[in-house]
Amino acid sequence: MAEDITVFTGSAHPEFAQEMCDILGVELSPTNITRFSNDCLQVQLRANCRRRDVYIVQPLVPPVQENLVELLLMLDAARGASASHITAVIPHFAYARSDKKDAPRISIGGKLVADLLETAGATRVITMTLHSEQVHGFFGVPVDHLSATHELASHFQGTDLSNTVVVSPDFGYAKVASKLARLLDVPVAAGSKRRLADDKVVIDRIVGDVEGKKVIILDDEVATAGSMIELMDRLREYDVEEISVATTHGLFVGKAVERLNAQSDIREILTTNTVPLRPDCTPDKLAVRSVAPLFAEAVRRHNTGESISTLFSDEVTIG
Amino acid sequence: MAEDITVFTGSAHPEFAQEMCDILGVELSPTNITRFSNDCLQVQLRANCRRRDVYIVQPLVPPVQENLVELLLMLDAARGASASHITAVIPHFAYARSDKKDAPRISIGGKLVADLLETAGATRVITMTLHSEQVHGFFGVPVDHLSATHELASHFQGTDLSNTVVVSPDFGYAKVASKLARLLDVPVAAGSKRRLADDKVVIDRIVGDVEGKKVIILDDEVATAGSMIELMDRLREYDVEEISVATTHGLFVGKAVERLNAQSDIREILTTNTVPLRPDCTPDKLAVRSVAPLFAEAVRRHNTGESISTLFSDEVTIG
Amino acid sequence: MAEDITVFTGSAHPEFAQEMCDILGVELSPTNITRFSNDCLQVQLRANCRRRDVYIVQPLVPPVQENLVELLLMLDAARGASASHITAVIPHFAYARSDKKDAPRISIGGKLVADLLETAGATRVITMTLHSEQVHGFFGVPVDHLSATHELASHFQGTDLSNTVVVSPDFGYAKVASKLARLLDVPVAAGSKRRLADDKVVIDRIVGDVEGKKVIILDDEVATAGSMIELMDRLREYDVEEISVATTHGLFVGKAVERLNAQSDIREILTTNTVPLRPDCTPDKLAVRSVAPLFAEAVRRHNTGESISTLFSDEVTIG
Amino acid sequence: MAEDITVFTGSAHPEFAQEMCDILGVELSPTNITRFSNDCLQVQLRANCRRRDVYIVQPLVPPVQENLVELLLMLDAARGASASHITAVIPHFAYARSDKKDAPRISIGGKLVADLLETAGATRVITMTLHSEQVHGFFGVPVDHLSATHELASHFQGTDLSNTVVVSPDFGYAKVASKLARLLDVPVAAGSKRRLADDKVVIDRIVGDVEGKKVIILDDEVATAGSMIELMDRLREYDVEEISVATTHGLFVGKAVERLNAQSDIREILTTNTVPLRPDCTPDKLAVRSVAPLFAEAVRRHNTGESISTLFSDEVTIG
Amino acid sequence: MAEDITVFTGSAHPEFAQEMCDILGVELSPTNITRFSNDCLQVQLRANCRRRDVYIVQPLVPPVQENLVELLLMLDAARGASASHITAVIPHFAYARSDKKDAPRISIGGKLVADLLETAGATRVITMTLHSEQVHGFFGVPVDHLSATHELASHFQGTDLSNTVVVSPDFGYAKVASKLARLLDVPVAAGSKRRLADDKVVIDRIVGDVEGKKVIILDDEVATAGSMIELMDRLREYDVEEISVATTHGLFVGKAVERLNAQSDIREILTTNTVPLRPDCTPDKLAVRSVAPLFAEAVRRHNTGESISTLFSDEVTIG
Amino acid sequence: MAEDITVFTGSAHPEFAQEMCDILGVELSPTNITRFSNDCLQVQLRANCRRRDVYIVQPLVPPVQENLVELLLMLDAARGASASHITAVIPHFAYARSDKKDAPRISIGGKLVADLLETAGATRVITMTLHSEQVHGFFGVPVDHLSATHELASHFQGTDLSNTVVVSPDFGYAKVASKLARLLDVPVAAGSKRRLADDKVVIDRIVGDVEGKKVIILDDEVATAGSMIELMDRLREYDVEEISVATTHGLFVGKAVERLNAQSDIREILTTNTVPLRPDCTPDKLAVRSVAPLFAEAVRRHNTGESISTLFSDEVTIG
Repeated sequence: MAEDITVFTGSAHPEFAQEMCDILGVELSPTNITRFSNDCLQVQLRANCRRRDVYIVQPLVPPVQENLVELLLMLDAARGASASHITAVIPHFAYARSDKKDAPRISIGGKLVADLLETAGATRVITMTLHSEQVHGFFGVPVDHLSATHELASHFQGTDLSNTVVVSPDFGYAKVASKLARLLDVPVAAGSKRRLADDKVVIDRIVGDVEGKKVIILDDEVATAGSMIELMDRLREYDVEEISVATTHGLFVGKAVERLNAQSDIREILTTNTVPLRPDCTPDKLAVRSVAPLFAEAVRRHNTGESISTLFSDEVTIG
Repeated sequence: MAEDITVFTGSAHPEFAQEMCDILGVELSPTNITRFSNDCLQVQLRANCRRRDVYIVQPLVPPVQENLVELLLMLDAARGASASHITAVIPHFAYARSDKKDAPRISIGGKLVADLLETAGATRVITMTLHSEQVHGFFGVPVDHLSATHELASHFQGTDLSNTVVVSPDFGYAKVASKLARLLDVPVAAGSKRRLADDKVVIDRIVGDVEGKKVIILDDEVATAGSMIELMDRLREYDVEEISVATTHGLFVGKAVERLNAQSDIREILTTNTVPLRPDCTPDKLAVRSVAPLFAEAVRRHNTGESISTLFSDEVTIG
Repeated sequence: MAEDITVFTGSAHPEFAQEMCDILGVELSPTNITRFSNDCLQVQLRANCRRRDVYIVQPLVPPVQENLVELLLMLDAARGASASHITAVIPHFAYARSDKKDAPRISIGGKLVADLLETAGATRVITMTLHSEQVHGFFGVPVDHLSATHELASHFQGTDLSNTVVVSPDFGYAKVASKLARLLDVPVAAGSKRRLADDKVVIDRIVGDVEGKKVIILDDEVATAGSMIELMDRLREYDVEEISVATTHGLFVGKAVERLNAQSDIREILTTNTVPLRPDCTPDKLAVRSVAPLFAEAVRRHNTGESISTLFSDEVTIG
Repeated sequence: MAEDITVFTGSAHPEFAQEMCDILGVELSPTNITRFSNDCLQVQLRANCRRRDVYIVQPLVPPVQENLVELLLMLDAARGASASHITAVIPHFAYARSDKKDAPRISIGGKLVADLLETAGATRVITMTLHSEQVHGFFGVPVDHLSATHELASHFQGTDLSNTVVVSPDFGYAKVASKLARLLDVPVAAGSKRRLADDKVVIDRIVGDVEGKKVIILDDEVATAGSMIELMDRLREYDVEEISVATTHGLFVGKAVERLNAQSDIREILTTNTVPLRPDCTPDKLAVRSVAPLFAEAVRRHNTGESISTLFSDEVTIG
Repeated sequence: MAEDITVFTGSAHPEFAQEMCDILGVELSPTNITRFSNDCLQVQLRANCRRRDVYIVQPLVPPVQENLVELLLMLDAARGASASHITAVIPHFAYARSDKKDAPRISIGGKLVADLLETAGATRVITMTLHSEQVHGFFGVPVDHLSATHELASHFQGTDLSNTVVVSPDFGYAKVASKLARLLDVPVAAGSKRRLADDKVVIDRIVGDVEGKKVIILDDEVATAGSMIELMDRLREYDVEEISVATTHGLFVGKAVERLNAQSDIREILTTNTVPLRPDCTPDKLAVRSVAPLFAEAVRRHNTGESISTLFSDEVTIG
Repeated sequence: MAEDITVFTGSAHPEFAQEMCDILGVELSPTNITRFSNDCLQVQLRANCRRRDVYIVQPLVPPVQENLVELLLMLDAARGASASHITAVIPHFAYARSDKKDAPRISIGGKLVADLLETAGATRVITMTLHSEQVHGFFGVPVDHLSATHELASHFQGTDLSNTVVVSPDFGYAKVASKLARLLDVPVAAGSKRRLADDKVVIDRIVGDVEGKKVIILDDEVATAGSMIELMDRLREYDVEEISVATTHGLFVGKAVERLNAQSDIREILTTNTVPLRPDCTPDKLAVRSVAPLFAEAVRRHNTGESISTLFSDEVTIG
């Protein structure tokens, strides 16, 4: 019943929504976004939502607050327009990084944003590579949590992986790094961080064998690339042969491009397209794999009542 | 029990919060606001909230989306920190202008934001001069809706008000203009708007007698001042003697200052301080009346269980 | 999928429900309403609701409290009977007049009743001509807010409208009056009210040009017609040529019929059938336009997933 | 902290509220109730509610729907006025009789009204002698369910109870009748009902020994007294010596007074004052015991945090 | 649309679920239940739930807490897996016996469990013979409350019912006993209980004529059979001719089998299969009637949108 | 206002509740727990809760389901008894281990139980050492998440820590291990797990330098000690000098005691008392540190409105 699908996009990443629609064979429905002179936003969905299976595509990328409020307004508009189902398609859910209360009286932003989405009318969420798996449990509505690991692994499979190791920047992400390592049949290592002063954390050593190896650094998100560069510096102390970077969410903000381009021994930087890339603002040696086909397939399967898990679930889980 | 009050401010208008605290005789509690490299915000309330009567001061002024999300995070942090009561103090609730569904499939932003505040943890709201009185009913939590009309009237009382008329830019706000007019014992008039094309509305004439009069234009908010200037042009066709402007929420964004300064026959522009004013960005002939004392008194009375209505309610209501 | 529609009516206005059903080509399903000796009501829906698209038709007309509780019981019965969707069809939502808190410690009845309907099981509402557009935002469920303005305009179109003006009894309703005026291509005027004593409001003058004109007074609701007569008295001071009255909700309660019949210069009183009219209790010169076809079409379109906005939305919006 | 108690009454039974206030030593706070010409109600609480322990007194007696909506509006007004706690004091909760779904697609009115009270803002309920004990479980908020059995028993204690039996009109209420019987140390009997046709139920015999005895008929509520008279007719077939009637809720509506006065062998009719009694509308031989002191004590104890159960709970429970 | 039905069973009574599936012609979908070493449970539904009409079959039989938490986990898993509808099929809802607050500060377990089921994701419940009809009103979701009375009556119809009486162990259940009696066209009697000490209740006599009769004792549930045996002892004082026992929920726990087998004058013990029966743990002379066909038919009808009430509702209701 | 605190305990760990009460100087209030013959539980709180600050102490230890339902019933009873605040004190929240959806269609048990606690009436939670920090975000109510790390560190401080390393069994817990390591000023290492078959995970090597070192293994919970023993076997391949075990939650179920006692090179097993320890069921060389003082202090501070974070928060956070 694919004719029932109605897809709208906010202003964060229309290319991604368009690519999904092209695959699904549906038209991307138009949206009007108005900014009033007092800076308030208003959105108008310009296609019938009544009794439709509605999808609102909007990653939480900079400017995050603008994109978040825009998404909330779109969800609310779809609900008010009597949509049957309203799925927030959030390829990059940036607030997932705020997933714990590691200081007194802070907000757990990931949980709050999950609640806001439900208040605004989302009846389901599709997202990818949450910073930690537990963030799934922040949501009261069903979440289809897609993984980019297979997509990233595909890129390396078929290349020479001898003497290669997958490295996680810290212990927290080592579990996912292990999964990629296993798909590539190579070992894993992790950076160990130390807090110097109140607000300064450094990677002080590498746990696991990286000496003289070819390294694939895996992280969920690359923003300013600051800690990525720091990790490379540490790795070079172990005479690593070459360095690749793989990440789901390639934000490349601030000095990221400048910093990464300055690292001559980087072989490749691999990312997906969950975050929009501007040609003038991407590092050299960048390879991009589109995950829009995965999202489109998840939408199609949900719409027809087929299982998503049989397709995307990871066979391996590791503690 | 004023010692129980704990006041925090977001980054939108700390001067207002400070002024309230000075009047209340409490310290403004510190807040840390962090922007991560992926543009997500994190707030930390840096004073004990446990079993406190907590107030978070934040008008929704530009950048509205940043300030809104910051406010939501602060409310959530206060709830997580076991505050007894959490009042959102929102001197300017800009989204109140999105109060109806006058086009298909738009969000009613005022209602959505009211719901978001409740989801984030607000147990009460104090605000001023909502764009329409009905917005009060969008909230599920109690709202103390303060009025600036008496404060604005005070400014004109004692001046020569002979041959004066209060003018509302449109019919929708004429009711409030009537109230000010009655306090000043002068008549009222209103602009009549006409929609020319799909997105172009003009004031085509003035309903009520303004010929040769001294005019006080009253509006809830002045943003770009575009329609304000248009109204003045129309008024001048009636040979008005001089023009004053009175508004609760003086935003003065875009070309507002330039436009207003170009009107030589403006006698005075009166506003309150619900919106922060930057010295380099205010029109000439600006008079500002602080409403922080009203907000402080509302906080004090609520905290001690005294009635607020006996102080602030308007004796006159008009249909 | 029109066969899925199941329509029930409360005791407020069964003729309206029957007319809707006739147009839709479905049978009006029977309901038993029992009043126990202790004055409590019990309703029994006497047709299968399981997985049906259920509509409960009940305007909030006198006796309002009886009709409201009856409606709530019917909604609850439909929910308990496993209906898929439950739409409250409320042609006249009388409590919309309680839309603001213009005195201390009063209930905002419109908001409360909206909440009660949702608690009782309504998943959607269809209504017409809410006293103010903002009342739409009181509801947490989707609302299809139909307008009678086009229907009322149709009645006048084709008649001689030269020298005619549309008059709103007050500023609050002038915006809607402007809309009718624009459809008829005539100007607009409005009464200006003044509060004399604590509970006495009078129309003290007319803002806008009505001198010697033919007048169409527009109001959302005519109940006792008290303020309508007062407005006519004021208009006659301007030597108006003739007076017509147009209203969506013609209640005509108390002395309304007697009062209106005493006005010899009334040309016509136009209303819709959102409120049941008893032959012995209607003013002379009454013309009634049925809006049941609009409600039926809204039901049909919702049931089949067609857009309602393309049909009923007003092209013109005015501030 | 008795100074914090603020008591309002609706129009159902102000004498009861006044009696409670006299006992509590607090003033009954004034309320304005307005009926608009379109029959909608508006209530205004005319005393400060802010941070108060507010009690709204309103039994659900005829006109039940009017009194229910009035109560809901009062609760909502108290919430909007920032009351700390809002207790609905409902001496007679008439909708408790709608406590099961004994026909297809009927509303369970008792449950619905419980939900409506919570939606309107009640944070607690005090009531008496619910038609069945299970109705307690319909509420999401705490309920203090007072019993009149001890009060009724006190009336009979000290009188000659030899050869006396307590009779319940049906099996459903036999359990409570057993409790009264036990307090009076006499046996119990019950009527057995048979449904003749679709809507006709008759008491066809008495289960238990009543032959030649003095009978005390106990029921929770006496409305038209129809089934009470029928029970008496059946009892007379057993040559009962004399008949007394005891009930918590003495409604005496319809032909109740006429019917009861026609029974010459009635010795006494005992009721409490949960329902207002009009002098012209009470049966002969009526004795009234006030339960306002119990309600007042429940309010006082709740306000000061003392246990209510130690005072009012019934020591005996019987299956 | 029977292909949409997906049925899972917990570990409480898989045979019942299988029998339902056989009748419905659908496969029972597999479930994995894991108990971690810290005694926490995890369930995995091993069939696609997406957009399915999902049924989770689990009576609340011993071990009740294990079965309850297992059921809650299964409901939650189905919701997280994007099921369209999730019906908890609970043939025996044991917590219904906790339906009132007959002692201070106890939980009303039936209400709490109803709330927990809704929190876990149940959108509907099918159950049978709740301990009291009012428990229906504890649920916020629709409940199809099936009755076993007709099934039990069928068993006796066609046998010699002369000189027979149906006996309820107490007044509370006499109403249902009346219904069975009426279906069999025989009279009814009931035990009268007396509380001896704080926690000791005895049946002290029989209300109604049982002298020399053949007795059918009816109760909703037989657990340890303690009060059942006590009732038999009391009945024998009336020289009853023979005793049959009929019950919906035959738990037979503790010494039940031993006790019942010791009663030589029992003619038959009739139960349904809402509770799983272990061959080594059933009393002699046991007859079992399966109610799985009724549950299957209720599922089928709900799935296809047919009325359930026309099939299962009891024509007779008695007060 | 310590007199307002009322503490109840379920049957899981009354010694812990008693120890808390002794420190707080309040009496432990009595509770009656009844198991009906049908295996349903009923709890009665036997002390006044009205307007009290109520604490229900119950770790989720085996039998977990029994203890969980008991806790839910107690929370519900406290709410029904009009408690002001109801804090669930859960020293060991075992369901926190179900914190992610690592297989299709499983329940996230930690999130579900968090929701159930809120439904049952908990307004706040105090707990210790959740399996992952993100579980904090599963709760809609405020959580005070205490840490045992300082308590465990205190035990080792002052002993000879030269040549010592803290080892985490896997990467997921390495972050907390780092924290302990830093408090002790020693390095950290972690086990790397590999999944062999569908349900078999092994620790295949140690990441980090453990060769010849004294090892402190840290885990949040020790249940059957199976993976603990496996880790020791792996460590011995590195010729570690001696092994200590430190854990917050010492469950020691199944063969744990037998297994641990068989490891002759264990120097010490350190745990807290969040889980009740039976003398006959504890491993040799066990040292126990009570955390009841921390819980008592958290209760005291919350009750008096003092900050908890200043006391218990960890100064170091590590990524």
